[in-house]
Amino acid sequence: MEPLVVGVDFGTLSGRAVVVRVRDGAELGSAVYDYRHGVLDRTMPDGRPLPPDWALQVPSDYIEVLRTAVPGAIRQAGVDPSQVIGVGTDFTACTMVPVTEDGTPLCELPEFECEPHAYVKLWKHHAAQPQADRINALARARSEKWLPRYGGLISSEWEFAKALELLEEAPQVYREMRHFVEAADWIVWQLTGTYVRNACTAGYKGIYQDGEYPSRDFLAELNPAFADFVVDKLAHPLGTLGDRAGRLSAQAAVWTGLREGISVAVGNVDAHVTAPAANAVQPGQMVAIMGTSTCHVMNGTELREVPGMCGVVDGGIVAGLWGYEAGQSGVGDIFAWFVDNCVPYRGNDVHEQLTELARDQRPGEHGLIALDWHNGNRSVLVDHDLSGVIVGQTLATKPEDMYRALLEATAFGTRTIIDTFIDAGVPVRELVIAGGLVKNDLLMQIYADVTNLPLSIIGSAQGPALGSAIHAAVAAGAYPDIRAAAAAMGSVARDVYLPIEANVEVYQEMYEEYLTLHDYFGRGVNDVMHRLRARRNVQKGRK
Amino acid sequence: MEPLVVGVDFGTLSGRAVVVRVRDGAELGSAVYDYRHGVLDRTMPDGRPLPPDWALQVPSDYIEVLRTAVPGAIRQAGVDPSQVIGVGTDFTACTMVPVTEDGTPLCELPEFECEPHAYVKLWKHHAAQPQADRINALARARSEKWLPRYGGLISSEWEFAKALELLEEAPQVYREMRHFVEAADWIVWQLTGTYVRNACTAGYKGIYQDGEYPSRDFLAELNPAFADFVVDKLAHPLGTLGDRAGRLSAQAAVWTGLREGISVAVGNVDAHVTAPAANAVQPGQMVAIMGTSTCHVMNGTELREVPGMCGVVDGGIVAGLWGYEAGQSGVGDIFAWFVDNCVPYRGNDVHEQLTELARDQRPGEHGLIALDWHNGNRSVLVDHDLSGVIVGQTLATKPEDMYRALLEATAFGTRTIIDTFIDAGVPVRELVIAGGLVKNDLLMQIYADVTNLPLSIIGSAQGPALGSAIHAAVAAGAYPDIRAAAAAMGSVARDVYLPIEANVEVYQEMYEEYLTLHDYFGRGVNDVMHRLRARRNVQKGRK
Repeated sequence: MEPLVVGVDFGTLSGRAVVVRVRDGAELGSAVYDYRHGVLDRTMPDGRPLPPDWALQVPSDYIEVLRTAVPGAIRQAGVDPSQVIGVGTDFTACTMVPVTEDGTPLCELPEFECEPHAYVKLWKHHAAQPQADRINALARARSEKWLPRYGGLISSEWEFAKALELLEEAPQVYREMRHFVEAADWIVWQLTGTYVRNACTAGYKGIYQDGEYPSRDFLAELNPAFADFVVDKLAHPLGTLGDRAGRLSAQAAVWTGLREGISVAVGNVDAHVTAPAANAVQPGQMVAIMGTSTCHVMNGTELREVPGMCGVVDGGIVAGLWGYEAGQSGVGDIFAWFVDNCVPYRGNDVHEQLTELARDQRPGEHGLIALDWHNGNRSVLVDHDLSGVIVGQTLATKPEDMYRALLEATAFGTRTIIDTFIDAGVPVRELVIAGGLVKNDLLMQIYADVTNLPLSIIGSAQGPALGSAIHAAVAAGAYPDIRAAAAAMGSVARDVYLPIEANVEVYQEMYEEYLTLHDYFGRGVNDVMHRLRARRNVQKGRK
Repeated sequence: MEPLVVGVDFGTLSGRAVVVRVRDGAELGSAVYDYRHGVLDRTMPDGRPLPPDWALQVPSDYIEVLRTAVPGAIRQAGVDPSQVIGVGTDFTACTMVPVTEDGTPLCELPEFECEPHAYVKLWKHHAAQPQADRINALARARSEKWLPRYGGLISSEWEFAKALELLEEAPQVYREMRHFVEAADWIVWQLTGTYVRNACTAGYKGIYQDGEYPSRDFLAELNPAFADFVVDKLAHPLGTLGDRAGRLSAQAAVWTGLREGISVAVGNVDAHVTAPAANAVQPGQMVAIMGTSTCHVMNGTELREVPGMCGVVDGGIVAGLWGYEAGQSGVGDIFAWFVDNCVPYRGNDVHEQLTELARDQRPGEHGLIALDWHNGNRSVLVDHDLSGVIVGQTLATKPEDMYRALLEATAFGTRTIIDTFIDAGVPVRELVIAGGLVKNDLLMQIYADVTNLPLSIIGSAQGPALGSAIHAAVAAGAYPDIRAAAAAMGSVARDVYLPIEANVEVYQEMYEEYLTLHDYFGRGVNDVMHRLRARRNVQKGRK
């Protein structure tokens, strides 16, 4: 009987289950469940309005993924559920569930049903920015040694900012909360009955470095009532990625239709599980998951402090290596904004139209250079108040010219990150692309030409779910470790796009233009973007 | 019997005649004739293709304006043609007609019918750029004293560049040509039978300064065959603006239906005649004629060398004062480009839609700052290879935000010109707006707020034709001079838009941002625009 595993990817709007053959990673069937409540970013389930920058979810939606998508994928695969030897999961992060001692989400307690702070705070809940600002200011003032591990900035999306917001805005919910749990771990808890905190989010989102969280002293200085947050609500035994967190509970076996007692892998994050799915877990292989934004993950043998990275975590991608993460806060989002706001025609696929029109241009033929900061700059400047720039428009400039300039700008942004890694002593030898944007072959060729690196493309369209399945196979003992499993089950087409020499040369010149503008606008030579942002906020506030 | 005058405005695509009452400037009737051949910028009348950057016209089209629009205006006014005591004209410039001894355009000679160089070279014929480049390089090398009178740059549109192009590309046409005549003067020649060269174009377009043209020595160094251009083809007795060039000929009386022998004013230029039409001929009154581009004309009592102005000419607008001219090479053209290329909806009047959407914003609320160089920068940088910039776009930026930023950018461009005049010792106390863009009241308020000047608006929608009529009245002796005629016949609404203090303050800050970017991109700190342009040209050339 052919052994199978199930990978379940919990995304922002839906959960996807995939049934995968352990032997070779073949995807035999899949099913998707769209969360009934989606993202609560305007109103609560009962219709009461939410403040701006909020983003909540309802945890029972995640259980529905287990109840519907997992059996659905098994049915679609046409296999016997008893062939499945393990389950692995990945989740958006940092997405946090405040729970009781037994893992019950506080929002499921009758007294908290109407309390927004008792719900899941989704990764893109950004209302904790004031708390994040205080964390950063204090950490800088105290020269906290963990700060450089995060490129010098703790995000408002992460655990400590969200927890401090909870304490200060809903003290009664904070008091009632026994654990502040990553959804990545909460779902594993639901599958196994055991709470295991995964090493990936603990490191990237929980400021867990060298065996320690931020000190009691630090937390007390932020807010005296926050002093014991780590011991009271956060710290918990960690699980290594690829390890077995526990065994499928009777309850979860009923939900999923799988056999009770099979292995369940330690929780993980969507971007990070994509590396093994693309069989790209060796040092020097940078995986770029390109969608609305881009997340870069890569392993390195040494700990290096790379300026402006999102984080470096020991075993953060695979055990035994330092996992590096960087990001571009706007990529597909910028192209979508352009199509929605800046193109004088509509159609079935405006992206495709613009790509076709821009395809035959030689690099630099449009006479433009742009900065890709429409959603801020995550790496390497770590500055969310930066904004977009386009230079060189004339009366002859066409929409496809500007579109191509934006494609290129995001490639220059990736190049900036790669160069910063290399300069910091973390070599990058190959760029492996995953995510929805792989389908734009012009974009891919531009990335190869701009980075002067061979581009590999992930073989699976369901990268995260396949990555979770790989973790399931390791947790079930089918492979000795993630690297071996990734080699057998991961899927990648190598050297799909190779740099074209003539383009590399011109793009090198244009990249130097990009860098000059990058430093001029991004490193304080002309701080106009911050002043524009501040003035905008003041003037909007006056209305 | 109420005395009347006729003003005829020869534009780029059509000619317009207006019948005006001498007593008060009331416009009694008007008529337009669209040139049958329009602008020849792709093919000759017989269909043969023209090279890029060419723009020709057919002189008989101008005669048709006299034959149709003038009688049409009289008919529409319902007046007796014998009431008309004078005719005045204005023309685009520099628009040049190569003619024989008797004024016959060379293109009307059978042997030259198929010769493009024998036709009228319209102002926007730009194929003489190589010649202009040589003129400028040589003038700089020789420190020619006339060069600063033109802001340091002679345009490819002007007389010497066009003449040198003619000599070098069509020597047989050049040889046959007896006079190289401004169309502004050619039309007066047709009306009177006498060739009088007007002081305005001789100064602004013909490099006539302090009683001299560029020297024989200079011309010989450009090209030995060009040495005698001035004496052989160009120099001719000058007429003062507002003077009588001659009397209406029998032939022209037949064409126009007006009385033989009435006064015909010395020729003039559309922008410059607009100043008296707006009764704005006093020093300190800057007239901005705002259309696809903006032309600024203003009188001053002293000669000053204003950096980057288009020209300063003694009596160039009215006799006895120094006439200053500056310009912005793209204004309405930029807004039109934006609407055509950067807005995701269409409609009857997208400009109006965008204006309505942008109207209620507070200054700076959009968080953007733009440079208005999509068609280069005429004043004060005098650099046609500069291009547009927009800084500050986010995923929340809407088309109306960018549209408003472009409106503001052109206002900042005007402010730069005003400040440069003031700094050079030429005071600017009032801004008088004429041209098609006066109808956008949001744009007008932004100009008042950005310049912190009271805005006056010309009363006539047919400014140039009214200005020509004013010149006709002076030429006919109805007024002692242009200033007196302008006071009686010109029409302006004063202080229509007054600066709003709160806006002035914010725009002052934003103007400082504009200036920083203006100098960064425009004065060589970062010469990226020239490199982008050069790369564009190389890459386009490789295809």
